[in-house]
Amino acid sequence: MFRKIIKQTTRKEGEIIDITPEIIKAIRESKVQNGLVHLFVQHSTAALTTIEFEPGVLSDFRRSLWILAPDNVDYAHNTRWGDGNGRSHVKAALIGPSLTLPLGEGELMCGTWQQTVLLELDVNAGRERTIICTIMEN
Amino acid sequence: MFRKIIKQTTRKEGEIIDITPEIIKAIRESKVQNGLVHLFVQHSTAALTTIEFEPGVLSDFRRSLWILAPDNVDYAHNTRWGDGNGRSHVKAALIGPSLTLPLGEGELMCGTWQQTVLLELDVNAGRERTIICTIMEN
Amino acid sequence: MFRKIIKQTTRKEGEIIDITPEIIKAIRESKVQNGLVHLFVQHSTAALTTIEFEPGVLSDFRRSLWILAPDNVDYAHNTRWGDGNGRSHVKAALIGPSLTLPLGEGELMCGTWQQTVLLELDVNAGRERTIICTIMEN
Repeated sequence: MFRKIIKQTTRKEGEIIDITPEIIKAIRESKVQNGLVHLFVQHSTAALTTIEFEPGVLSDFRRSLWILAPDNVDYAHNTRWGDGNGRSHVKAALIGPSLTLPLGEGELMCGTWQQTVLLELDVNAGRERTIICTIMEN
Repeated sequence: MFRKIIKQTTRKEGEIIDITPEIIKAIRESKVQNGLVHLFVQHSTAALTTIEFEPGVLSDFRRSLWILAPDNVDYAHNTRWGDGNGRSHVKAALIGPSLTLPLGEGELMCGTWQQTVLLELDVNAGRERTIICTIMEN
Repeated sequence: MFRKIIKQTTRKEGEIIDITPEIIKAIRESKVQNGLVHLFVQHSTAALTTIEFEPGVLSDFRRSLWILAPDNVDYAHNTRWGDGNGRSHVKAALIGPSLTLPLGEGELMCGTWQQTVLLELDVNAGRERTIICTIMEN
């Protein structure tokens, strides 16, 4: 098992960051050829998924998340805690914090248009996010 | 590999149970220090995710699931089978049954506000739910 | 570790294919008795989940995906690229490409009404889809 902590600084709500290059770097450092790459984002207002990293799709994706958790309704979390990020928690719980990718011959076995992304969902900007990358060899 | 069956009795639709203490118990029993913890809920009307375990957030999350699968529309599943849980199946398929968490130095590597939860989505109350916890050492 | 490439030809948008028999075949070939089965669909307009494989539920599930990403709105991806599958990308990113299932005594440890399915979400029909099945023994 190889483990690496990936840090990403985000700037604003709705930001989507392609972390594929960081994952490839971790694979190179691990020297593992075949196995699984597990990713976990250690926060309740961020999430991980795969998507074609194209500005149009990213904007369409943000709109669908807005349907699920609109900006213009009240959130019980905000009423209780006043931190204004109720919608951020809801989106993160729906998409989920973890993702596992296959690794073959030292390469990520993803599709050409399938990048791994970190979703910054919090309304509070300028955060450092921690992603735990675990590479399992077998 | 260490495996433990976690049983949880649920009481009503929309109930969200923090199963983090049960996972920590399984980790202690396994004596594994580093690896991955895989969780799988063995039912088609329940799901697993991570969320801040705070009543306001949980209530906001339930409302978003309602947007996806409202209570007040007809479901083809209900028409065919008459068991009334069409919306439960839809929500469970969207969130998913499986979750993998990193384990380091004998501790779950989750964020402070990031609990692991079982979602009881079925309209039929008083069920015993089975979660399969597998700990992989490497 | 045992790895097998599963190929599935799909015919139309919204098609949901039960791939459980293919997974069981891979388990038999691997001869692995205990561990985890990881599945990954190598495309940005397809996804994997578990669901009761019953026509009513499948139809209810498609309707919920339509709420998230309706057919009758404009997509920035379509405007930029003209390939018409903006909604397909959004649905796939929300559900996700990966799934991990527990394996015990040579059998999938899923519920009776819990089948593993490939969702064909692309508007362009007649595609061959690749699912990478990795079986980890430990």
